[in-house]
Amino acid sequence: MAEKFDAVDVIRHKRDGNVLTPEEIDWVIDAYTRGVVGDEQMAALAMAIYLKGMNRAEISRWTQAMINSGETMDFDKLSRPTADKHSTGGVGDKITLPLAPLVAAFDVAVPQLSGRGLGHTGGTLDKMESIKGWRADLSNDEIMEILDGPGCVICAAGAGLAPADKKLYALRDITSTVDCIPLISSSIMSKKIAEGTDSLVLDVKVGSGAFMKDIDQARELARTMVDLGTDHGVKTTALLTDMSTPLGRTVGNALEVRESLEVLAGGGPEDVVELTVALAREMLTAAGKPDADVEAALKDGRAMDRWRRMIVAQDGDPDAELPVAKDTHDVIAEEDGYLSKLDALAVGVASWRLGAGRASKGDPVQEVAGIELHAKPGDKVKKGQPLMTLHTATPQRFERALESLEGAFEISDEAPTPRESVILDRITAQ
Amino acid sequence: MAEKFDAVDVIRHKRDGNVLTPEEIDWVIDAYTRGVVGDEQMAALAMAIYLKGMNRAEISRWTQAMINSGETMDFDKLSRPTADKHSTGGVGDKITLPLAPLVAAFDVAVPQLSGRGLGHTGGTLDKMESIKGWRADLSNDEIMEILDGPGCVICAAGAGLAPADKKLYALRDITSTVDCIPLISSSIMSKKIAEGTDSLVLDVKVGSGAFMKDIDQARELARTMVDLGTDHGVKTTALLTDMSTPLGRTVGNALEVRESLEVLAGGGPEDVVELTVALAREMLTAAGKPDADVEAALKDGRAMDRWRRMIVAQDGDPDAELPVAKDTHDVIAEEDGYLSKLDALAVGVASWRLGAGRASKGDPVQEVAGIELHAKPGDKVKKGQPLMTLHTATPQRFERALESLEGAFEISDEAPTPRESVILDRITAQ
Repeated sequence: MAEKFDAVDVIRHKRDGNVLTPEEIDWVIDAYTRGVVGDEQMAALAMAIYLKGMNRAEISRWTQAMINSGETMDFDKLSRPTADKHSTGGVGDKITLPLAPLVAAFDVAVPQLSGRGLGHTGGTLDKMESIKGWRADLSNDEIMEILDGPGCVICAAGAGLAPADKKLYALRDITSTVDCIPLISSSIMSKKIAEGTDSLVLDVKVGSGAFMKDIDQARELARTMVDLGTDHGVKTTALLTDMSTPLGRTVGNALEVRESLEVLAGGGPEDVVELTVALAREMLTAAGKPDADVEAALKDGRAMDRWRRMIVAQDGDPDAELPVAKDTHDVIAEEDGYLSKLDALAVGVASWRLGAGRASKGDPVQEVAGIELHAKPGDKVKKGQPLMTLHTATPQRFERALESLEGAFEISDEAPTPRESVILDRITAQ
Repeated sequence: MAEKFDAVDVIRHKRDGNVLTPEEIDWVIDAYTRGVVGDEQMAALAMAIYLKGMNRAEISRWTQAMINSGETMDFDKLSRPTADKHSTGGVGDKITLPLAPLVAAFDVAVPQLSGRGLGHTGGTLDKMESIKGWRADLSNDEIMEILDGPGCVICAAGAGLAPADKKLYALRDITSTVDCIPLISSSIMSKKIAEGTDSLVLDVKVGSGAFMKDIDQARELARTMVDLGTDHGVKTTALLTDMSTPLGRTVGNALEVRESLEVLAGGGPEDVVELTVALAREMLTAAGKPDADVEAALKDGRAMDRWRRMIVAQDGDPDAELPVAKDTHDVIAEEDGYLSKLDALAVGVASWRLGAGRASKGDPVQEVAGIELHAKPGDKVKKGQPLMTLHTATPQRFERALESLEGAFEISDEAPTPRESVILDRITAQ
């Protein structure tokens, strides 16, 4: 069959700053999926998009074309409305774990199709896999069954959703075309829209440990994704949240599961609880339940109950002990004062170097590796007290992890201005 | 061996508008040649260079790195100085054929390492191959022997010269990164510098049938290449020449050889003679012979003698009849007046469609296909007279060739302002 376009022309149009037509976008994504447009051509186009941008209509069509490249899921048969959350990724971000069962406790179905970690931010599936027996890979029938029962599921996204995005994402990773708002937003949203959720809340992280270091860029990304979701009939809101310092007091796989269980038991660190509750309210409001008393569901065990049912449904043992590292190393405060800085990126890299993350796709991760934080910015610290404890199964990793922590924290004589909230802004459909 | 850089970082630096370091440039070209940097990565880098540019130092280093990717030739052992010409390509541009023997007639060696045509501009080797027995592929020893004997050689560039450029050129062709001055100039000059000529004259074409449609862009390309040659110790000058209308009165392979023979016999069309003489003067001046009487060498047969010796040295028969098309079709003037326009691109495309050029690398070309022009802009024409004759071995091609000639020429009541010279400007080392 003759092709409708020539990749060379489509690349040239974007290179010269033109708006791509809907037909050009449909063709180039489809032809790339079929292998008719080569990786080298898509790389040139991605760089042209990076440097010349795409407007709202182009991004919307590009997203739709990626959705069309594969299968879509359909939750209409469920008896419950669906609500989903996506985080752009941060250090210590275990929010999905308490959030999904918390929202499910109000009979809103939460299909959390998640990924694995690469680089300094951990992956939700990696964390969940430190639970004995727990299984990430589910069939579509299993997913529907769990959503109709416990009401929440955290599992691997099937290969069938937006295959064009999978191919393009891998390409962008090696061609310096990742951090480009049209390409990030269409990548995230194509998967979320293909997944078929009724509503979506986006947690767009801002700060050293996040993809977006700068609040204006984060706001633009959030706005673009909220518009995209809205254009595709998904009720979408976004919270911009602070990622200058890690979320909670643990970073790593089993360590973060433990902290999530504390939250589900009605305790846990203040910032994790605040963000979990805020995101749950967004999801429940979108699902028509703005008055749900989410704090109560954490305190009275309803959220924990959903968690346990979800774990069991995925062959996990909710009562199994979480694995613990044999080797630990404390980082000690060298003076009295207030912890005035604790850099998210540095802690994320240290945890990754301890074995919590992977350098290449397919590498194994250590369940036990990670960092416990004994002090957070604003806390008073005393000379000689441990500031953090590093965990690993391979003690030769301590040295490089400690290197990445150089300059990562500061102790000051005066107390820093306390952060009012982990939530910096809220973006809604216009 | 560990690599000195990561392609992702080099791409990002250029994407963000930085100047690449000499070490980055050396590495990326070498790693691309070795296959460590992939085509998709080089495509992204080429697009970033297209949109962000390179400065004189970067282009110079990029060129040197491409030279370093392969072998270089050395003409120092020759008893004669060497002078070379490069044309950026045009319609009816057969100048190399009379020029090389003309310059050789003054004992300046002319190593014309040439290419084949792709698209609407013909290739010198394709033209030469319509001479019975003539052979384009020569060993380095054969090239040196012919340069020491007849003094000029037109042959295929060996695969060993600037292999990085060959790889990159093929990539640029499919990724819309061809018409970018830093990449064009480094591509052309890497081969010419690797070839080892003492001096070089560039024929930079301007107009519809040329790569550069616009004189300012052509001037910038010429300036960049003259600077590059100068920086690498090659005496380099450039002429900007008109390519709004075809050069001479023939377009096609055997047809252009026939016209070249007319020039070598002291006749031929005015524009072809003017340009041949001007380029010969540039080359001879650079070789220390500014007073050579080039017109005389065309008139008295010295240039023709060199031509015949060159053809024989490459196994060709200078007395063989040139092949002629069985099928021809005349395009007739529909009114009296002056030919006021004859578009180079349209004529080039028509000739290509008649079979003179190839659509894909490796396609065969017809020796006989092409177009004879019976009128050039400014000529008086009478209703019913043939304006041009189309030639082909495959008459079913006439229709599509005629389509491309629609709107290609105009007849006016008033004589157009005559073109003063085919030469528009001259660019020399600063």
